[in-house]
Amino acid sequence: MHQEVLEYIQKNRDRFLEELLCWLRIPSISTDRQYREEVLNSARYLKEQLAAIGIENIQLIPSEGFPVVYGEKIINPALPTVLIYGHYDVQPPDPLELWNSPPFEPVIKDEKIYARGACDDKGQVYMHIKAVETLLKLNKLPCNVKFFIEGEEEIGSASLPGVLAAHKDLLQCDTILISDTSMVSLEQPSITTSLRGLAYVEVEVTGPNRDLHSGVYGGAIDNPIFRLCKMIASLKDENERITIPGFYDDVKELTLLERRMLAEVPFDYANYLLELDIRATRGESGYTALEQLTIRPTLEVNGIWGGYTGEGSKTVIPSKAYAKISMRLVPYQDSEKITALFKKHFESLAPPSVKVEVRPHHGGNPYISDINSVSYRAAAAAIKQSFGKEPIASREGGSIPILAEFDKVLKKPIVLLGFGLDTDAIHSPNEHYGVKNYFKGIETICLFYYHFAILSRN
Amino acid sequence: MHQEVLEYIQKNRDRFLEELLCWLRIPSISTDRQYREEVLNSARYLKEQLAAIGIENIQLIPSEGFPVVYGEKIINPALPTVLIYGHYDVQPPDPLELWNSPPFEPVIKDEKIYARGACDDKGQVYMHIKAVETLLKLNKLPCNVKFFIEGEEEIGSASLPGVLAAHKDLLQCDTILISDTSMVSLEQPSITTSLRGLAYVEVEVTGPNRDLHSGVYGGAIDNPIFRLCKMIASLKDENERITIPGFYDDVKELTLLERRMLAEVPFDYANYLLELDIRATRGESGYTALEQLTIRPTLEVNGIWGGYTGEGSKTVIPSKAYAKISMRLVPYQDSEKITALFKKHFESLAPPSVKVEVRPHHGGNPYISDINSVSYRAAAAAIKQSFGKEPIASREGGSIPILAEFDKVLKKPIVLLGFGLDTDAIHSPNEHYGVKNYFKGIETICLFYYHFAILSRN
Repeated sequence: MHQEVLEYIQKNRDRFLEELLCWLRIPSISTDRQYREEVLNSARYLKEQLAAIGIENIQLIPSEGFPVVYGEKIINPALPTVLIYGHYDVQPPDPLELWNSPPFEPVIKDEKIYARGACDDKGQVYMHIKAVETLLKLNKLPCNVKFFIEGEEEIGSASLPGVLAAHKDLLQCDTILISDTSMVSLEQPSITTSLRGLAYVEVEVTGPNRDLHSGVYGGAIDNPIFRLCKMIASLKDENERITIPGFYDDVKELTLLERRMLAEVPFDYANYLLELDIRATRGESGYTALEQLTIRPTLEVNGIWGGYTGEGSKTVIPSKAYAKISMRLVPYQDSEKITALFKKHFESLAPPSVKVEVRPHHGGNPYISDINSVSYRAAAAAIKQSFGKEPIASREGGSIPILAEFDKVLKKPIVLLGFGLDTDAIHSPNEHYGVKNYFKGIETICLFYYHFAILSRN
Repeated sequence: MHQEVLEYIQKNRDRFLEELLCWLRIPSISTDRQYREEVLNSARYLKEQLAAIGIENIQLIPSEGFPVVYGEKIINPALPTVLIYGHYDVQPPDPLELWNSPPFEPVIKDEKIYARGACDDKGQVYMHIKAVETLLKLNKLPCNVKFFIEGEEEIGSASLPGVLAAHKDLLQCDTILISDTSMVSLEQPSITTSLRGLAYVEVEVTGPNRDLHSGVYGGAIDNPIFRLCKMIASLKDENERITIPGFYDDVKELTLLERRMLAEVPFDYANYLLELDIRATRGESGYTALEQLTIRPTLEVNGIWGGYTGEGSKTVIPSKAYAKISMRLVPYQDSEKITALFKKHFESLAPPSVKVEVRPHHGGNPYISDINSVSYRAAAAAIKQSFGKEPIASREGGSIPILAEFDKVLKKPIVLLGFGLDTDAIHSPNEHYGVKNYFKGIETICLFYYHFAILSRN
């Protein structure tokens, strides 16, 4: 069966790539209202591609935001069912000027597909469609499959809990399979076993009711930019520990054994610095860089703006200054609780000379996989067969906000079978996805169904 | 003579306004390259207006940047000569959305002229042209006049020292008269006797060589925005005192007598808060608000930007963050010295995890007038005659960077005979200039020539 899969993939290689490139040409930027129609076009393209391989009961499930694309192939109700989750929306591409080729005109260069969404998540979703096509064409699909691909992952999946709750019966399955994460390397495959959660807010500091001349008013008027800087600066102490009262209360410290296991994940610190062109990392004292990146919560300023930002100089004290601030959360922190703690603390930092407003954007809770589940073992067996090497369990720093919700509603194991690499520049200019990763992914997913069907029988 | 002046102004009132509005329609924004041609158009309009009233030897003196408009009327070489300095460029109008009417489509509303440049400085320069027209038409100009109006004041007058040095002979005069400041109120006229200097820099903090995903990289990578906030926040202590080593070394503390004199300037604190819609001021401990605004140096963030600033959210750690920072200086601080101190200190604040670059923009030294000069006394007499009240000596927080240079090259007293009000919103949306201020200004300037000629004879 492995041989047949490889042959089918090889024979259809060019088409498998071309179809993905077509999808990548659609700028489905969910956060920007201007791109609303393109996000819907992305869903429509997905629908057509599912229909083309013989998926049935295809529908655009409406939501309060963008619809969820659903489709299924029920071979036999007695067989185990795999629910595939992913997303058809992408991050904004800016800063545009740093891209070497336009983000929505995909090119293949040095065996990598360059485009916004190449890895996150269109490339990884499309592997699933092509894997199911392969097995259907070979008449070897040993499970039922359900596709459940949303369009709001990059803006926090706000509508998804409602869709999940309303379609709980339709979505019944034995496991949830997701490719929206990365592995250590093609030489050292891995399966992600934990993800961080997210709390994201926007803050606005208001000083005087209008922009003022910094000569006439400077010295007595509190400057909203300076005040915002002071408030932000105070959110972490000199050990880079977050100062929001109660922030760490629910963080479960890892055992020494768990930390030793994590330390086995290859991490080349010198190369890490070199690749990012920095002289040093800087994170919470008392933890390794890898720990800071995966098992510790963070606070990041994702954007800041205020005053005159054009060419040259302007001597102004602006009326307002803004920042976008997000926190990555670890088990067992709660996104809503952390957002509330942030809001209360940040508001308390404002002196009487300014007003402050904290607006929550979106969030999601952290997640840990059960590495003893049938689907996790099936994924490990598939990887061992396709890569020739046992995968290690790794923890990832990113977030898939909706995982906790799947867990709550469907109560089935989730497997994070991702084929990206940390160097794929997702969310950055020049996002890319290895052509080899793409085809290895299709192959591995085919094998997953085989192992999952067998292990489910025992 | 006073009566004739008033009659001539009254008779030509509409034309005096209309000509100014025409000038205000030209968006002469010197800091923005896109407006280069409009800045030149502003100079050309000025040239035509000088020619129209009979000014001679008119020329655009070339400089490394925008030209200086020069013109003169030498009645008799034996008479005293007044050099009028001002500027034909304006500040950028943004944020545009806060203007009630377009910044370059002047309107008169509630007896105020609304437009960018209405007060700073086209409105105040144009008073001089109309005052000289009035005296020439009445055949009553008792002095020689020289107009010297530049186009780079809002970007630091960088080319002006070169022009001054190269045309020292042409510019010989007995006093320099400038209307680019404000007075306390129409009820309490005042003459500005000191101005603050300026040091203006742009800073750039660079972290990783590209924008990164804040989940994948967050926790170990120093975030350039957060680091910039920390660095900026540390520039002032909890007493709002600037922490740059050596910053206050050359600041001359005022004597108690001088502070008492300053305290006599009317300052309605409650109304000040109300008008700006703030609950409290916040400035250096140990000084009154008025002192903080005039006799104490400041550090302001005039602009900040970095990361994602669009709609919605983006989980990014940006590669770079920027800020524009300016410091107002008081006698006897030196702009270049302070810029160097800032640069050294700010660079020293950067940990090894980021790189920092400080780029000086422009600056200018602080200035104090001699209140015993003939021209200061002539200005005081003119104000007393036109306003019916003795002017008080006031100190202003703004800067006219080139004053120190005039002092050095021409070595003649400078009089800051300004008719703006602090509420005129210069450098802000809805800049305006009182119609009454405009006409009172023309009247007072006419009287100045009369008193200056008489006092010079003694």
